[in-house]
Amino acid sequence: MVDVVKRLQKHMREKKIDYSILYNFHAQNINENFIYLSKFHGVGVLVVPKSGAAILVVPRMEQQSAEKAFSKVVARDDIFAFVSGKLRSGMRVALDYSSVTLKGSSLLKKKIKAKLSFVDISDYLSSLREVKSAEEIAIMKKACKITEEIYYETFSHFDEFERESDVAAFMTALANSQGLQLSFKPIVASGVHSSEAHFEVSDCKLKKGFCVIDFGIRYHNYCSDMTRTVFIGKPKKADLLLYEKVLKVQLECLDMVKPGVRCMDIDLHARKILGSDFCHGLGHGVGVGVHEGPSVSPKSKHKLVPGNVITIEPGVYLKGKYGIRIEDDVLVTAKGKELLTKMPKHLLVVEK
Amino acid sequence: MVDVVKRLQKHMREKKIDYSILYNFHAQNINENFIYLSKFHGVGVLVVPKSGAAILVVPRMEQQSAEKAFSKVVARDDIFAFVSGKLRSGMRVALDYSSVTLKGSSLLKKKIKAKLSFVDISDYLSSLREVKSAEEIAIMKKACKITEEIYYETFSHFDEFERESDVAAFMTALANSQGLQLSFKPIVASGVHSSEAHFEVSDCKLKKGFCVIDFGIRYHNYCSDMTRTVFIGKPKKADLLLYEKVLKVQLECLDMVKPGVRCMDIDLHARKILGSDFCHGLGHGVGVGVHEGPSVSPKSKHKLVPGNVITIEPGVYLKGKYGIRIEDDVLVTAKGKELLTKMPKHLLVVEK
Repeated sequence: MVDVVKRLQKHMREKKIDYSILYNFHAQNINENFIYLSKFHGVGVLVVPKSGAAILVVPRMEQQSAEKAFSKVVARDDIFAFVSGKLRSGMRVALDYSSVTLKGSSLLKKKIKAKLSFVDISDYLSSLREVKSAEEIAIMKKACKITEEIYYETFSHFDEFERESDVAAFMTALANSQGLQLSFKPIVASGVHSSEAHFEVSDCKLKKGFCVIDFGIRYHNYCSDMTRTVFIGKPKKADLLLYEKVLKVQLECLDMVKPGVRCMDIDLHARKILGSDFCHGLGHGVGVGVHEGPSVSPKSKHKLVPGNVITIEPGVYLKGKYGIRIEDDVLVTAKGKELLTKMPKHLLVVEK
Repeated sequence: MVDVVKRLQKHMREKKIDYSILYNFHAQNINENFIYLSKFHGVGVLVVPKSGAAILVVPRMEQQSAEKAFSKVVARDDIFAFVSGKLRSGMRVALDYSSVTLKGSSLLKKKIKAKLSFVDISDYLSSLREVKSAEEIAIMKKACKITEEIYYETFSHFDEFERESDVAAFMTALANSQGLQLSFKPIVASGVHSSEAHFEVSDCKLKKGFCVIDFGIRYHNYCSDMTRTVFIGKPKKADLLLYEKVLKVQLECLDMVKPGVRCMDIDLHARKILGSDFCHGLGHGVGVGVHEGPSVSPKSKHKLVPGNVITIEPGVYLKGKYGIRIEDDVLVTAKGKELLTKMPKHLLVVEK
């Protein structure tokens, strides 16, 4: 992999930053910038000097897991005593302001005796993360491939499911049985539930009508994020036409994806056609975070560059009735784009 | 439920706080204090005035889900314009410093025009959360019961599993099929993996020897957290003795649980017997957070009070060899304690 720590260190030297300190103290949360740099999702502190080897400092109980993730690991009972020992008054230290809380920041200042000046490294890390390296792309392609396989397997059993939770449980088990976690809580929203863009899942029986399934996995720390909408029962002509409308918009938006195009222009194309029933952004970057930069929204002035991986996910939501969403992950390449989730998008109709 | 928002408002009036503002902008993270007060785990801002109704302000796409969770919901395109409209210069506003990031805090100050003085409400909310109400206890009992049922079902199929990931997938599917999420990534650590206290799960075949299984679910926003260790193959006498030693310590520590006892004294009892192979704290509070107050560690001066729910989870970890951990959730009552996870703890031996 292009060593992201080395890219950070180059930036630190340009900005006269002596150390970057990133930490994660909540084993259950996904601290994205920390994971991006350390490849480690346990508890620890990553100490990055402006040159030389970065050190991952962890509690003793995390030592073995940490050594599998990062090249240089130190285990300590008092992690901050170790970190503090590296720092001298007058140094410029970068923190990830997008993850350090007000409380964490006070504690840090108490633990470290040296008088430091702090700078925020979060925007720089976000911009680094937006452009994937060849190795990151290879991982994400694999994540998307596994996700598609799970969708195929799920759709081939769809007539066996009774409840929304059966679908989610089946998909989750397919991921877990490969030792993989999900990248977010899956959405299986049937009938009127599909009209809520962020409905999760219930133990209600699968209702007739559209059923939105939004699912992704985490593979080697990288996320996939994919949505398909199926129809349970017998669709009316109006249902088919509405689905075709969303699909056509999705294909048109995908067609617009190439270097130099502004994200807002792709979003606005979808919004112009779908109107106010389209109540969320068209898409977002995906990587270590299931939602990261660049945003694909009406306000996003970002111009696509090769290495961006974004979702394109137009939808319509008719309150109290139903909803439809179709979402793929797409890589921006030098020549244009490469679809990472390639599963067909004709409407799957499940007679029940 | 004892209305936690009303308890917060009483505290606010005592401390002359005009508003408490809690928010969650990362749908994938568990923002515990926000969920504790709002019962909502989506994106939104909870605006709590010192008296009168609290308002949950959410993006339009979250409105329907939010209305199921909280009594007074307002949907807005520009959430902070609404919040800002409530605030006047000179007001004292409480924020949750344990979740507001340095970046979030800067953005907030830009969005809100009034000149406010800010105070930290996080310690107060932690202390509120440490003492569960009758209704919270009823939810947690149910969470523990479901967790035990999943363990029973899993153990009755244990000889069918080939890999660690099969065990985790089976347990997760049992939770998901009831529409429930897990409270943390499950641990299934067999053979040498069990020597890592925080090993998660691999797709390796189940190895002979001890296998530590640490698993919990989230039920109505409340967590369970339970560990059992089984033995795969034929244990030697030394294995049985070591298991008995850990179990005896666990039972002794549980026996010590009652109001007025210092958490550190329970921890130190275990530590005195198990020595340095016991490399983590004895336990922790559990509730909306899978790890919350009170801590049950060598430094914890907290004296138990009725309503505390804590884990008691001694373990031994022999680096490069194996590990054992036994964990229950226990409620402190006026008279002493009530075990919430009651599953037997004799060593389950699975011949393979």
